[in-house]
Amino acid sequence: MKIGIVGGTGDIGEGMALRLSPLFDVMVGSREPEKAEATCTMGRDVMKKRGGPCSLTGVTNQGAIDAADVVILAIPFKHVAGTLSTLHGFENKIVVSPVNPMEKTDHFIFVPPKEGSAALMIQKILPKEARICSAFNTIAANKWKALDEELNYSVPVTGDDAEAKKTVMEIVNRVSRFRAFDAGPLASSCMVESLTPLLLNIARYNKMRDVGIQFI
Amino acid sequence: MKIGIVGGTGDIGEGMALRLSPLFDVMVGSREPEKAEATCTMGRDVMKKRGGPCSLTGVTNQGAIDAADVVILAIPFKHVAGTLSTLHGFENKIVVSPVNPMEKTDHFIFVPPKEGSAALMIQKILPKEARICSAFNTIAANKWKALDEELNYSVPVTGDDAEAKKTVMEIVNRVSRFRAFDAGPLASSCMVESLTPLLLNIARYNKMRDVGIQFI
Repeated sequence: MKIGIVGGTGDIGEGMALRLSPLFDVMVGSREPEKAEATCTMGRDVMKKRGGPCSLTGVTNQGAIDAADVVILAIPFKHVAGTLSTLHGFENKIVVSPVNPMEKTDHFIFVPPKEGSAALMIQKILPKEARICSAFNTIAANKWKALDEELNYSVPVTGDDAEAKKTVMEIVNRVSRFRAFDAGPLASSCMVESLTPLLLNIARYNKMRDVGIQFI
Repeated sequence: MKIGIVGGTGDIGEGMALRLSPLFDVMVGSREPEKAEATCTMGRDVMKKRGGPCSLTGVTNQGAIDAADVVILAIPFKHVAGTLSTLHGFENKIVVSPVNPMEKTDHFIFVPPKEGSAALMIQKILPKEARICSAFNTIAANKWKALDEELNYSVPVTGDDAEAKKTVMEIVNRVSRFRAFDAGPLASSCMVESLTPLLLNIARYNKMRDVGIQFI
């Protein structure tokens, strides 16, 4: 399966690319393809030292979409609308949003767009043939990058297209010790996205780092 | 410490009363004191069979408030405003809200009041001297009642009064294997309350029961 990461050189996208590279064909997208290629060169070095396979290819964000079966939007909420307005070709692609709309005052707070969640806003922006799911919302950038660490987390996945959601859950379940949970339709993504500012508050007020979640 | 449970004969309140009865002086409140006393008689039987102490006293909701240091509002969201309008004497009491404003369509969804959360609405209704925290939001009624079961859950606690929050966290940490986490000011309670409809969706769509949460 071919996975394209829009924003693949960013904080979250880079770690995601490393973790996914031995498992899938991964296209690292960036506005600047040179930057994407640099991330891939670094990634190939890292994975070579670990003695494992590595499938990274550096491309533009548009190239990542064009080549992929599954597109992951690894971009901060504030850049989502602007970035998507420059891209096309999402029809019939599975599109995964790990995006969390939040703000920081003295604490972190969930601040959804008027659609109710980032995933629902993305659904409104993209063509109706795009098969949108939310996933990976609560996984910290540091954890994606800590390749020696087993990630024993629950990963809620939402979406309206049952087959797309099943595919995304299968992808989730192949990464480290992630366990995918069906969290319902895309309309319930707001409750998943608001987990992330909650976890950041838990970390902040309890002197912890990169807090994750398990459903038990 | 004296804990008063408003709605102590309800689904959540009854299990809470049983779990708390060996640890604290517990006043079970109800609109009908006879119903409260019936719950206490049942509770004393249950605890006697288990060979442990039991501190339950059946009173009116107002009696529970008047006698308590800490008042837990074990009432469904839809009854909160109406119930609180009939009660008084919250000044200087620690008031704990486990209340989750949510609705069910084909899935569960967080539907907060205009204040942003149930806890913030309660803060607005009660006198400003009431020391409001949110806690216990994600603990299912069945789990409160399953006295033979160790409850190995994380319990986020929010509040603006540091001393009150510390007391509530100490109460949380004495119950079964609960671990209290400071989740920030009362303004962040919306993100805790929205966990409960998320957990209900997780249970529903993954054929699980009474799903709880751990921060790791």
